Amino acid sequence: MAHLGENRYGKSRVRVMKVVRQATHHAMKEWNVRVLLHGDFESCFTEGDNSMILPTDTMKNTVYWLARESNATTLEEFAIELVDYLLSNNPQVTKASAEVEEKKWDQALIDGAPHATTYKLGGPELQTVEVVRERGDALKITSGIDGLVVLKTTKSAFTGYIKDKLTTLPESTDRIFGTRATAAWEYLHPPDSYETTRSSTLATLLRVFADHDSLSVQHTLYDMGKAVLEAVPEIARITLTMPNLHCLLVDLSRFGQDNPNQIFVPIDEPHGYIEAVIER
Amino acid sequence: MAHLGENRYGKSRVRVMKVVRQATHHAMKEWNVRVLLHGDFESCFTEGDNSMILPTDTMKNTVYWLARESNATTLEEFAIELVDYLLSNNPQVTKASAEVEEKKWDQALIDGAPHATTYKLGGPELQTVEVVRERGDALKITSGIDGLVVLKTTKSAFTGYIKDKLTTLPESTDRIFGTRATAAWEYLHPPDSYETTRSSTLATLLRVFADHDSLSVQHTLYDMGKAVLEAVPEIARITLTMPNLHCLLVDLSRFGQDNPNQIFVPIDEPHGYIEAVIER
Amino acid sequence: MAHLGENRYGKSRVRVMKVVRQATHHAMKEWNVRVLLHGDFESCFTEGDNSMILPTDTMKNTVYWLARESNATTLEEFAIELVDYLLSNNPQVTKASAEVEEKKWDQALIDGAPHATTYKLGGPELQTVEVVRERGDALKITSGIDGLVVLKTTKSAFTGYIKDKLTTLPESTDRIFGTRATAAWEYLHPPDSYETTRSSTLATLLRVFADHDSLSVQHTLYDMGKAVLEAVPEIARITLTMPNLHCLLVDLSRFGQDNPNQIFVPIDEPHGYIEAVIER
Amino acid sequence: MAHLGENRYGKSRVRVMKVVRQATHHAMKEWNVRVLLHGDFESCFTEGDNSMILPTDTMKNTVYWLARESNATTLEEFAIELVDYLLSNNPQVTKASAEVEEKKWDQALIDGAPHATTYKLGGPELQTVEVVRERGDALKITSGIDGLVVLKTTKSAFTGYIKDKLTTLPESTDRIFGTRATAAWEYLHPPDSYETTRSSTLATLLRVFADHDSLSVQHTLYDMGKAVLEAVPEIARITLTMPNLHCLLVDLSRFGQDNPNQIFVPIDEPHGYIEAVIER
Repeated sequence: MAHLGENRYGKSRVRVMKVVRQATHHAMKEWNVRVLLHGDFESCFTEGDNSMILPTDTMKNTVYWLARESNATTLEEFAIELVDYLLSNNPQVTKASAEVEEKKWDQALIDGAPHATTYKLGGPELQTVEVVRERGDALKITSGIDGLVVLKTTKSAFTGYIKDKLTTLPESTDRIFGTRATAAWEYLHPPDSYETTRSSTLATLLRVFADHDSLSVQHTLYDMGKAVLEAVPEIARITLTMPNLHCLLVDLSRFGQDNPNQIFVPIDEPHGYIEAVIER
Repeated sequence: MAHLGENRYGKSRVRVMKVVRQATHHAMKEWNVRVLLHGDFESCFTEGDNSMILPTDTMKNTVYWLARESNATTLEEFAIELVDYLLSNNPQVTKASAEVEEKKWDQALIDGAPHATTYKLGGPELQTVEVVRERGDALKITSGIDGLVVLKTTKSAFTGYIKDKLTTLPESTDRIFGTRATAAWEYLHPPDSYETTRSSTLATLLRVFADHDSLSVQHTLYDMGKAVLEAVPEIARITLTMPNLHCLLVDLSRFGQDNPNQIFVPIDEPHGYIEAVIER
Repeated sequence: MAHLGENRYGKSRVRVMKVVRQATHHAMKEWNVRVLLHGDFESCFTEGDNSMILPTDTMKNTVYWLARESNATTLEEFAIELVDYLLSNNPQVTKASAEVEEKKWDQALIDGAPHATTYKLGGPELQTVEVVRERGDALKITSGIDGLVVLKTTKSAFTGYIKDKLTTLPESTDRIFGTRATAAWEYLHPPDSYETTRSSTLATLLRVFADHDSLSVQHTLYDMGKAVLEAVPEIARITLTMPNLHCLLVDLSRFGQDNPNQIFVPIDEPHGYIEAVIER
Repeated sequence: MAHLGENRYGKSRVRVMKVVRQATHHAMKEWNVRVLLHGDFESCFTEGDNSMILPTDTMKNTVYWLARESNATTLEEFAIELVDYLLSNNPQVTKASAEVEEKKWDQALIDGAPHATTYKLGGPELQTVEVVRERGDALKITSGIDGLVVLKTTKSAFTGYIKDKLTTLPESTDRIFGTRATAAWEYLHPPDSYETTRSSTLATLLRVFADHDSLSVQHTLYDMGKAVLEAVPEIARITLTMPNLHCLLVDLSRFGQDNPNQIFVPIDEPHGYIEAVIER
């Protein structure tokens, strides 16, 4: 006998752009939103009864409506308002979540100065947030960044690892260390400013990545997370995912050349995958 | 004071192709493998001590070595062997997982008959498996399919849903129902043949999708899952994810035309998202 | 002094789906259309005068309107009608082109039989056409296929090539030959049926690829094209592009294993690139 | 009777990274190279005779070898050396081309200053060059940028266009103007510095895009190109491709809200497509 287990539904990839025309410049944000609802939806699945179903099309409209209504300037605030609106207006919903991604639109630099009304996409990385609330519980807010692509050309070694019959990797005391990092942080308590917290966190991650004497991806990842907890008191824990985007040293001896750590072949696959939570 | 929380590491996107040259034809499989290890890795993170670290490069080699060594003909068997090899040979590892994706290579049809040594990529969908084993525990095996793109032109309605101030969706008694379905099933007990179980499951999913009088995506999803549990006794539960790939009826009245459910605009974003577990 | 050189404009990625509800089944096509116009548009560029500009939004509407109006059942017929409509209704246009891609939607097989109203995406490949007409000239029609992914496990060699100081590739008398083929054919005269011509062409390409004793990608590509010209009299010339999707034989000797042409690593990059026109 | 028409072959997506360890910082470039050869290859196609064939694998090796050998600091210089090497060493080749794409790796900003040995990917855009040489002829060099994503929130109108029975677009005097621009410029004569020419060109394109009172995409595109010809004397002609990435004003009146040009839905498809050459 079949029965319905865990389930949820919602709308993905709802894109919205908001332009706030201020005296000095136009503030512009582009958000990509996903909304998911949990609740009392069993009869819809088992009997085709839609009387408890808020259409996903209406969720999309809710994003547009709220974008106009809201004064939120950060993705965190917008996601919180969205979750609270959905819970308040839908008694059949027991839990709601909103995920928002923000593209890296920077004010374009014209003659060295940020232009008031022109933006340039400044990186592949996305700013992210996930807000979840179970009815009656506190908000769970996880901010993050996705796809921060960085690379250091020195201060990266990997030696002293396990060798077995399948080992072919040579030890290296000076290798390229490239990664497409993802970070996600949770809060001890709501920060004064999500924006300030975000910029401190990103600056810290980048600074430690750059300066660290890396003995492994794990080693650097841990010190990056630890430094964030030291620098940003309102963060409770941070999850870092740092795939190792390998740059292979080319064997040029076949062509009678040396290769003093100069010529590499970057590859996308396979890639190492390292993930850890650093917490207080 | 920072400390290390949950962590894991491994190798992603290890691609391997195996050709078995049989009398009647060449059996060929292309697998994309991800291996992840949990274990006693704290000193690597906190001190840069790699003495407990099996390099991800060696995991890649392990996939190649095992591909040659193994007689596995299904992705499930290969993933099980891989997990067991890693656990057996690495006492520092407490838990290992292997995910394998298999591309849909079909023997090419030449004059109506499958060719013995030529393959054609037959769809975007991937066959998948995830095998996880905690040391000392049983294997957890989840088989699935990812990216099965199907569409029905009739027997799909959506009416009787909640209307509120943000509702603009008109009810429909005959709409297009398109989805890029993902399924993942767990086993009551190991089946006689993973391949037979897989083909029965996929045939059942497709048959119910095609014939169902759908009152909503949820309604069809549930009956698809229920039918799988009825048809395939060794399956314990199935998770189905069926984003609704919308095809919007074009308003042609602006051009003096009618549109009797003929002309649609398919869109990729936004899309509905429906996910549920159906279990015994 | 700057002046305007060649220019064109139009609309890309106009997606439209048409469902024709027939007695026995629902015929369904999904087309992705690009329209481009050449003409007397100089004052728009140099002075911002839009009086000769048909908005690209109207081109999009034209695709929708024509989809309803037309009885075209092939992408070729639809593209021809689109080009002719644009030229006939826009005297300022001197040349128009339409490109149409059709997704490989196949009627889903349920219990071995094609289902009347359910479709499954059956491959990554797209059917394509480009139609161009200069006002007063004949139509130029180029049909094709894009992204046909095929692979053969035998009858492929590569030997006898130039060796120089940078050569490291070993000769091979039995290698994997995989490709993501693109074909584009032009017509001697309009065929009785674009659909029959297309299916004969694709069947011929696939048959020769499968059976050919390949001495190089070039060698097989040429014989594929030659066979099309022999089998399909209305085709004047065919352009084939066949990147070589390499599958590298893994060196397993490092692990004490042999590798009798069984275990390969498929790579996406770098890849060989071979392109040629075969004509009468 | 079939015969071979135009043909060419080569290697695509050869990725190479070069690190030059200087006193003050590490210069790092990541290039993605495509090499194509034309020549006397007929017997390869028609008879499987590979005696005139330089393997594409050797072309890949040539990229690696040259990366070590060369002092080129710009993609233009590297592509020129590559083409000249291939022509000089392969008498069977009548024409060679090299295309190089360079990723936008910027020195990471740490506490406001560029870090000496750490890079961050700073945008989706790629710097590009194509160098072609027919044996005995001069080099043809086309530099460019691909995928420069920019957006302005004001000074963009579109009015006065053709209206017909299929027109539904309302005129706008203040719309969002977003594009993913591609530019490609050819030279009157080799510049003193490809790098300076490139940075002047990009700065000019961005400045005009930002400040222009746009009456259409065409209008802005033309003035961008014209300004480049004025600012950069060594450029002979520039081709600009500026798809119009539409941001649709949301109709919020359905929800009782106004929308004073604040809330938009960005869409990827369909999109306008505008392309023109501006030359002296």
